[in-house]
Amino acid sequence: MSVFTTVTAEDLGPFLKRYSIGSLLELKGIAAGITNTNYFVTTSHGRYVLTLFENLTADELPFYVNLMAHLANHGIAVAAPVANLADEYVDELNGRPTLLVQCVPGTVVDKPSAAQCFEVGEMLAQMHLAACSYRGEMKNPRGADWWNATAPCLFELMSAADAEQLRAELALQAEQCFDDLPRGVIHADLFRDNVLLNGDHVGGFIDFYYACNDVFLYDLAITLNDWCASESGDVNADRAKALLQGYQGVRVLQANEIAAWPVLLRAAALRFWVSRLYDFYKPAAGEMTFAKDPWHFQRIINAHAERQDFWL
Amino acid sequence: MSVFTTVTAEDLGPFLKRYSIGSLLELKGIAAGITNTNYFVTTSHGRYVLTLFENLTADELPFYVNLMAHLANHGIAVAAPVANLADEYVDELNGRPTLLVQCVPGTVVDKPSAAQCFEVGEMLAQMHLAACSYRGEMKNPRGADWWNATAPCLFELMSAADAEQLRAELALQAEQCFDDLPRGVIHADLFRDNVLLNGDHVGGFIDFYYACNDVFLYDLAITLNDWCASESGDVNADRAKALLQGYQGVRVLQANEIAAWPVLLRAAALRFWVSRLYDFYKPAAGEMTFAKDPWHFQRIINAHAERQDFWL
Repeated sequence: MSVFTTVTAEDLGPFLKRYSIGSLLELKGIAAGITNTNYFVTTSHGRYVLTLFENLTADELPFYVNLMAHLANHGIAVAAPVANLADEYVDELNGRPTLLVQCVPGTVVDKPSAAQCFEVGEMLAQMHLAACSYRGEMKNPRGADWWNATAPCLFELMSAADAEQLRAELALQAEQCFDDLPRGVIHADLFRDNVLLNGDHVGGFIDFYYACNDVFLYDLAITLNDWCASESGDVNADRAKALLQGYQGVRVLQANEIAAWPVLLRAAALRFWVSRLYDFYKPAAGEMTFAKDPWHFQRIINAHAERQDFWL
Repeated sequence: MSVFTTVTAEDLGPFLKRYSIGSLLELKGIAAGITNTNYFVTTSHGRYVLTLFENLTADELPFYVNLMAHLANHGIAVAAPVANLADEYVDELNGRPTLLVQCVPGTVVDKPSAAQCFEVGEMLAQMHLAACSYRGEMKNPRGADWWNATAPCLFELMSAADAEQLRAELALQAEQCFDDLPRGVIHADLFRDNVLLNGDHVGGFIDFYYACNDVFLYDLAITLNDWCASESGDVNADRAKALLQGYQGVRVLQANEIAAWPVLLRAAALRFWVSRLYDFYKPAAGEMTFAKDPWHFQRIINAHAERQDFWL
């Protein structure tokens, strides 16, 4: 559950006085999310989500919250941050840095349709273009440097065959050079549970706390690996084609992107294979959550390695 | 009618390519408003209003559009401007500077209830506070300098009795000094037709093109004179009390504001008496609209002059 820091209506009274969003009607903890504390805050003006950051510090937040505000100002479906009377998005409550955002309409969809994948692809491309005028910079904290540094402590804990395959995947990616591919700000974690869908429409992309500067196509690959793959690692061709069509209706892929696409799909799976292996073998002290299945992403890599058609 | 510059779906195609709001589904002229051209633009992402400015130039717009964006970012119910891919709110179409804003929910209410007046008062106070961190500056284009310069050309066109009363009102206002009253950015034209109400809630304040830096209480007086007065100039005490209670729930009036309130109510009526007299006696060449009744505001001044109770 995701309420790590308790907030009462009494705590919220003076906090809301620093905003222009009316008076409190209802306060309700949100039981999703595993990193931060989240509450629904309903006021006389509307419905908001209040996040108390449990790990990120106030210094680290501007890249993410200014990005969300930038995207909202460009009409991208994201939860728009609300500034306080001091004209700051980040405030503080009960010893934690906080962010208030407008509620976005919609729900998480576990089994998306091709039409929904099309809309997600379109909004992702629009987000990539709208973020081109964003001035913040953030290195990918889960890029090649990270996985090359993290994997060695995992090899001895894995089966010999898995360790061999992981070494081979790392070596394959180390041979690549993506420097010429179009890049900019990416979401980097656009799984189904980070998108609220309102019917077929994108109500909002949420959880931008892995956003960073990297290759656009890598973001599309991360998205496809989650939105279009089944539990067995198999990719549904209709959904994959729809996602790519939605994306390319806004931003057409270049020749060098099409050439890099098969290996970027594997890179996008590798990143989550390694992070899930790490969470599985090296759980943080006191962590109570169930680690997600790392081998799901190994199966996706296997499926991509055997593939002839990449839906382009 | 308010479509002075025609926009076709063909015109809009390349224009929308400069935004991140999806593709055009419907385009429809809006028949309200007398200054600018307005269209409803429905895209695959949502519903927007496109304004083509017929008088204001691109140089004059940043104060207003940045103010609207600032207020939207603070959770004030206003139509949020949408930035284009060049990160500009003001674009251009068919030779006119343009602004795209998100649609706000609600409709114009001709006969507001006391509950609705309360909500408008509360949002107005929240707007005054949220705009304190806005850095733009704009002199009131319809302040005392303007009415003192404009009235002389009207005297000879009015009845002798009306001209005498107008001279006396101008003299009364010239004796006042409001320099010590709290001031900041005001809407300055918050009539019923510039507020969309969604049930009892404020869906959005619109039409910020008279916004300027002036005395907060003057804004409240303009609002009261329209929201709470009948055709005879009489003020409904329930609605006036509700408006003031809503406002003071957010920002309590100071002693010097309470002292200035009766004469500011007359100043707020004088401003519209003079502008409507001017529109009536000196219509712009080729103007086809019917001038609004100037004497309505004379009746409001008379009612305020005779009043004992100012609902405080």
